[in-house]
Amino acid sequence: METQRENSASNLLGGVWCFLRKCLFFVLSFGPMPNHIAFIMDGNRRYAKSRRVKQGNGHRAGFTALTSVLQYCYEMGVKYVTVYAFSIENFKRQPDEVQSLMDLMKQKIDELLKEESIVNKYRIRINFWGNLSLLSEPVRLAAEKAMASTARNTGPVFSVCVAYTSTNEIMHAVEESCVEKRGRIRKGYNNGYKDESVQADNKDSVISVTDLERHLYTSDCPDPDIVIRTSGETRLSNFLLWQTTFSHLQNPVPLWPEFSFRHLVWAILEYQRIYPYLEQRRTSSKEKN
Amino acid sequence: METQRENSASNLLGGVWCFLRKCLFFVLSFGPMPNHIAFIMDGNRRYAKSRRVKQGNGHRAGFTALTSVLQYCYEMGVKYVTVYAFSIENFKRQPDEVQSLMDLMKQKIDELLKEESIVNKYRIRINFWGNLSLLSEPVRLAAEKAMASTARNTGPVFSVCVAYTSTNEIMHAVEESCVEKRGRIRKGYNNGYKDESVQADNKDSVISVTDLERHLYTSDCPDPDIVIRTSGETRLSNFLLWQTTFSHLQNPVPLWPEFSFRHLVWAILEYQRIYPYLEQRRTSSKEKN
Repeated sequence: METQRENSASNLLGGVWCFLRKCLFFVLSFGPMPNHIAFIMDGNRRYAKSRRVKQGNGHRAGFTALTSVLQYCYEMGVKYVTVYAFSIENFKRQPDEVQSLMDLMKQKIDELLKEESIVNKYRIRINFWGNLSLLSEPVRLAAEKAMASTARNTGPVFSVCVAYTSTNEIMHAVEESCVEKRGRIRKGYNNGYKDESVQADNKDSVISVTDLERHLYTSDCPDPDIVIRTSGETRLSNFLLWQTTFSHLQNPVPLWPEFSFRHLVWAILEYQRIYPYLEQRRTSSKEKN
Repeated sequence: METQRENSASNLLGGVWCFLRKCLFFVLSFGPMPNHIAFIMDGNRRYAKSRRVKQGNGHRAGFTALTSVLQYCYEMGVKYVTVYAFSIENFKRQPDEVQSLMDLMKQKIDELLKEESIVNKYRIRINFWGNLSLLSEPVRLAAEKAMASTARNTGPVFSVCVAYTSTNEIMHAVEESCVEKRGRIRKGYNNGYKDESVQADNKDSVISVTDLERHLYTSDCPDPDIVIRTSGETRLSNFLLWQTTFSHLQNPVPLWPEFSFRHLVWAILEYQRIYPYLEQRRTSSKEKN
């Protein structure tokens, strides 16, 4: 009886909180809303340290924060959310830490695919961006499964940068473009264009910005409007460098597991404040292109 | 007589200020000092607007601020200073504004090469990085002359990013690498390697990180330790994206012409405060490579 009453109270409170949140998002939506928010989820280990709990618990708290943030973002109509989950650099951490992070990642990816998960609720399409061959096999398979099974979803897009650095992404795009171009050069040779002067003029063998951008992981995503790096850090740490020329960089002080609803709302307000200036920059860039 | 006395007083004050400055730099140098500082000199136009003076005067004040900042940096032993003077995007401004900026740039480059200038005082080597062919001819010629005449200088290095964006720099490096590789492929073909399987394995035709970095403008410069963007802006605006993974990004509030000695000292103190953390990141990255 007592438990039932507690459950009802909890459901009621949850409902009221959800209603209030939606009211606030409605008010916010009168201003310009971001289409794509990217997060550098920094501070999980420091969170664990400051609370004197195991490192894994810091990452676990980070995943909980991520689920809430995703929920809030999609509720307010943000179409794209991208997170920096694990950089190529992070593989240099202690092997047992890397292993436990991989285990946690596998578990969380599996959870995302469950019937009652946020992914099914919003019909989210999931991307994993990075050199996935560096991941342990179970994580790689889980990631590939998640991408395949959500590929036809028409809801918001959730992209996870894992085994990722931006310079690696650019190099990957350069390599892919090279392979593509190499095919064309070979074709030219097979057709008999061996004359050096013809070769020198052969524009096909030089990679263009369009070639490169077509091979970036982010090719079918708009650039982020906001990049939020938690824990007050002000570096981009090799995250979406190519894509953040016109993004608003924000560095809120809380560690990632502490990043909550009010910090997100504040970030949107900050974006709305600076929006006319950002838009002016973006528009003048488009005019040029 | 009056003028003479004023001059002596002014010289005396100048000397005392210089002495105090050097004392402060001596104290600062007990902490870790940056080797390379990069500046995004933002806010010249807003400075002119806020003071209701002509736009050109804002840029002129910006150049004065730059001379002082260069002087302070070299006094405190910073070996590399890089500034973002004019982006490719800036060519979209009003033609008369672009023209007057080009004129001012030409005039300031000429001044840098004068006998009594800071360049000769510190034996500075000057670089101009960017697509210089986009500059007006007098500016391009002045820039090329400045680079040629300081190329053998052994003092600090002053690099000016002009007609520059980072994505353009990366694409330029990709193109240069392609041209280099194309030569090798052609050589391979001329030597009779027409077999497709040999071609597919031909690693020479794929561009590596080393190839690309060798063709970046910054190839003979260390990455910046600090990137300072004035006027409180938090975007990198397509500036040295490839090179700033481990840089400390700072966004002081003053507009560029207001950026003074105390702001620079504060920036160094901020860097020294965060240094152990930055160093830890850098070291672990080196260990990996």
